Amino acid sequence: MDGKISSYAAAGVNIEVAEAFVDRLKKTSGRASHKNLWHGAGGYASVLPMTSDLAVALTTDGVGTKLLLAVEQESLETIGIDLVAMCVNDLICVGATPTGFLDYYATGKLIPSHADALIRGIVEGCDQSDIPLIGGETAEMPDLYHDNHFDLAGFAVGSVSKSRLLTGAKIAPGDSIVAVASSGIHSNGLSLARKVYSTLADRKRLLIPTLIYVKPAVQLLGNPDAQISGMANITGGGWRNLLRLNEEVGFEITDPLPVPEVFHGIAASGVAPDEMFKTFNMGMGLAVLTKNPEHAVSVFAEYGFTAQKVGAVTPVAGQVKIHAQVSGKSLVLDIRK
Amino acid sequence: MDGKISSYAAAGVNIEVAEAFVDRLKKTSGRASHKNLWHGAGGYASVLPMTSDLAVALTTDGVGTKLLLAVEQESLETIGIDLVAMCVNDLICVGATPTGFLDYYATGKLIPSHADALIRGIVEGCDQSDIPLIGGETAEMPDLYHDNHFDLAGFAVGSVSKSRLLTGAKIAPGDSIVAVASSGIHSNGLSLARKVYSTLADRKRLLIPTLIYVKPAVQLLGNPDAQISGMANITGGGWRNLLRLNEEVGFEITDPLPVPEVFHGIAASGVAPDEMFKTFNMGMGLAVLTKNPEHAVSVFAEYGFTAQKVGAVTPVAGQVKIHAQVSGKSLVLDIRK
Repeated sequence: MDGKISSYAAAGVNIEVAEAFVDRLKKTSGRASHKNLWHGAGGYASVLPMTSDLAVALTTDGVGTKLLLAVEQESLETIGIDLVAMCVNDLICVGATPTGFLDYYATGKLIPSHADALIRGIVEGCDQSDIPLIGGETAEMPDLYHDNHFDLAGFAVGSVSKSRLLTGAKIAPGDSIVAVASSGIHSNGLSLARKVYSTLADRKRLLIPTLIYVKPAVQLLGNPDAQISGMANITGGGWRNLLRLNEEVGFEITDPLPVPEVFHGIAASGVAPDEMFKTFNMGMGLAVLTKNPEHAVSVFAEYGFTAQKVGAVTPVAGQVKIHAQVSGKSLVLDIRK
Repeated sequence: MDGKISSYAAAGVNIEVAEAFVDRLKKTSGRASHKNLWHGAGGYASVLPMTSDLAVALTTDGVGTKLLLAVEQESLETIGIDLVAMCVNDLICVGATPTGFLDYYATGKLIPSHADALIRGIVEGCDQSDIPLIGGETAEMPDLYHDNHFDLAGFAVGSVSKSRLLTGAKIAPGDSIVAVASSGIHSNGLSLARKVYSTLADRKRLLIPTLIYVKPAVQLLGNPDAQISGMANITGGGWRNLLRLNEEVGFEITDPLPVPEVFHGIAASGVAPDEMFKTFNMGMGLAVLTKNPEHAVSVFAEYGFTAQKVGAVTPVAGQVKIHAQVSGKSLVLDIRK
């Protein structure tokens, strides 16, 4: 249930309605009363113990309106990568090693070339995550979806031992923030981006697949010398995602990665800088908190990712302070929940 | 991936296209090469080992066109029960104990009263299964779904030890078949049923929620004296689902439970009896294979289910032989894959 608010915000929908629903949902589902669930940082995944020392971590997600862009562009080869990415990048944030993926694919009409392209993308995403596609469901529902319309939902499972679970509790002022570069807009904020980029050619860049951070992340999580205290998958909600990890600290980013071009275009359309950082990843697809930033940077580099130390954890609870360059201007932003 | 063919058949779609897709899918996904997956009977769930003795079982499913009936009838209170049922009734067929559920809910517009009704149904389904609703994703996608349209996908997880895994291998000629009554049409074959039942009043009975067999099934699976050798959730594909469990045996049903009224109406519209048994549950929602049928019957009765010994496993590989009363006529049917 966590993370829903931010995805509503990114979709430009009625946030009050959505927030109220999620509040009621949490009460109804009695999630809090299921005391046998372990607490994973930021609610990125549900962590269900199997033994006293071992748990499964579970996530489900879709790709939102990026799916409509893929349909519009008749480009279905990579949307499956996004689907896997949205799920597995959440699993690593609780310290879990992804172990399998299942898909739900519903369409108005099963067009073989479309279905094959979608599945190739899902399998590619699984390969990038070092996991098998272990199951799925395909449904043809002509009365629900237009012929070439479809929806996709993903379900990822991972395993985590009690000693490796990231709860957020070990995050402390002074920890370094290592940013790992995104490939662009990833799979959040597309409703807004679609409004700004109106031509097909312009929109092509919006389909660049979400990066999957699993392989280097799993290597780091398995190495005590890496001293990882937290990871935040930067999805809807932008850099506020950092605040999900630990309520008692803040985050200051003094030396961010360059903001990808795609975001400059959106900012130029009149979206305020703080809104940009509250909605998009702004170039930081994953934030890694560690006492050993050099090691994290080198492992991500080894796997071909751009990463650098961008800042540090502060004692200012609930604040993300950002020193950024947007459209040539130097800004200091103070982002709260 | 298993079970897809039958759901296509139930939806009245192009089965050749669907079968070809699933064949390609199985090759692409390299599922066979993932040798670390345990083999669960009938492919009802994917079984992913966590330790040498313990695995998670995973399923995903939707409710197909039953969802459109719920929208049409403005009756959203119980479709969530169907969603949970479709997933958890599959988990028990590999011997797993369900432990958690996640939902994916996508809609054109989040209407609070609709969303609340859906979630109440999901939570009710979870309660009937003795599991928590541990997570989910809600997406508002106005350009994909009409305002009051939506789609639902469910993901269920369970645990199973190696010694309790149902693989189908222990099913042997002479084992008893215990049928557990369905509540009616459950969640398969609705496309066909919708065509037969055209008035709103007639269609109301099609919305009766799918029964959830988890509690008695888990009790039986945990008791070696129950001598359970297999369970088949009767979904799309009807009684052919029995054939999924073990290819080397057959099944003869001499004394079936009464066929619910809803199926007589469909048969009367001109659907041949063997097609009926190849598409619908015909009153048997779950088939339990055991050497101790009296015990199974008594446990299901204890939980309020109607169950009886209806037949036995035979040495005739690949055959389901049915002695049935349909529309007052005595028939002997020979059903194959």
